[in-house]
Amino acid sequence: MAVAHRLADAARIETLGLFRSPGLHPDNKAAAGFDPVTEADRASERAMRAILAAERPEDAILGEEYGVQNGQSGLTWVLDPIDGTRAFMAGAPSWGVLIGLSDSDGPIYGIVDQPHLDERFEGGLGRARLISRGEERPLATRRGVALAQATLMTTYPEVGSPTEHAAFRRVAERARLVRYGLDCYAYALLAAGHVDLVIEAGLQPYDVAAPIAVVRAAGGVATDWRGGPAHHGGTLIAAGSPELHAEALALLNGD
Amino acid sequence: MAVAHRLADAARIETLGLFRSPGLHPDNKAAAGFDPVTEADRASERAMRAILAAERPEDAILGEEYGVQNGQSGLTWVLDPIDGTRAFMAGAPSWGVLIGLSDSDGPIYGIVDQPHLDERFEGGLGRARLISRGEERPLATRRGVALAQATLMTTYPEVGSPTEHAAFRRVAERARLVRYGLDCYAYALLAAGHVDLVIEAGLQPYDVAAPIAVVRAAGGVATDWRGGPAHHGGTLIAAGSPELHAEALALLNGD
Repeated sequence: MAVAHRLADAARIETLGLFRSPGLHPDNKAAAGFDPVTEADRASERAMRAILAAERPEDAILGEEYGVQNGQSGLTWVLDPIDGTRAFMAGAPSWGVLIGLSDSDGPIYGIVDQPHLDERFEGGLGRARLISRGEERPLATRRGVALAQATLMTTYPEVGSPTEHAAFRRVAERARLVRYGLDCYAYALLAAGHVDLVIEAGLQPYDVAAPIAVVRAAGGVATDWRGGPAHHGGTLIAAGSPELHAEALALLNGD
Repeated sequence: MAVAHRLADAARIETLGLFRSPGLHPDNKAAAGFDPVTEADRASERAMRAILAAERPEDAILGEEYGVQNGQSGLTWVLDPIDGTRAFMAGAPSWGVLIGLSDSDGPIYGIVDQPHLDERFEGGLGRARLISRGEERPLATRRGVALAQATLMTTYPEVGSPTEHAAFRRVAERARLVRYGLDCYAYALLAAGHVDLVIEAGLQPYDVAAPIAVVRAAGGVATDWRGGPAHHGGTLIAAGSPELHAEALALLNGD
């Protein structure tokens, strides 16, 4: 865990140095469309990998920008140096640095760090806390909220494929509030008890490892849209309580 | 301007005291659907009105929660004590306190304040600056960006009526990036040069007075979707440059 915090500290320096910088020119990773990556993404991941090379050479790494590095310990660091690069480019503080630690069963520990806000959400291995501006507070999801009273978040209004969008709409139409555009910060707000549901699709493993660990540590439930493990990417539904998870999962599956 | 900053300081105390508070229970203002208002909205506006009653009794007031108070000076304070109450409820720091000052021609000065971020965007009467964490920086919109390279923001994916939504989509399909959900903070990011376009509909006068003043002071253009004055509410298009404003306006109007 000390190493994880050192990774987050290093990523803060690299990302904050370029956040809202006029010299930030994104490159396009996509063959069609626009999938931005910036020097901030690359520098942030390089800084974290350098620490892991020195401190945890036996662990594997899966990172968004520099791919897979095998290990021998059975543990994998799952890194997204900037989740929400589009928000980062737009100056909006909903992006985050994601640091997950997984064993063969999935995520066991994670940090969701928002450097501009100085908010670090940590969960797993017995911890569930928000560290912000020198203070610590416990993280706990909100319980006892039915879907009709729930706040639901997702990043993209189109959600995923047309079929996935239709499934999402079945839930959204029954929620009290739906909000868009917050990237990984939506999971942080769920863990802190401010929102009740986050439902997304089209995810990669590095998008979800840390959020899953933090949400679960705070008392929430995180699965794919069939109720199975979500750490391989694809779809993810995170809920503040098992009851709300079950209510939304039934609607996603057409009940 | 000193009074405006005192209003913003007072509103910060009232809003931050209830932001992310588990005791925050929104009431519903809407006959159909859900239009939340919280004690934070009301307390924030009351605090600002108390200062105006003492310091500027001759000015008129238009506030979201407590309506119109007539005046004799020809100046009107246009107050939205929490723009983005839904974001406020969800713990997301995109809400803001809007303080506009208008004469008979429209907004002449405004503050868009984000208390949780400690970011105060001020524009008009010769000022255009961001005050944050004890430091000041000038505000200036980004220039020379064509729509194909632009970042566009709006709060609600449905934007407004079906006709308004179709007009918005004509612009959105040609923009490089579209982001949702930031409420008044989108206009602040435009004034600071991080995004290029904000296009919204279904607005009230208290939603737009301060953002219009700040955007214009930073070098941007803000009109309704026909190119006319926008301070009465309805539609608003704000752009970083006159050229981008013209390009997007033509698409909104079906060219």
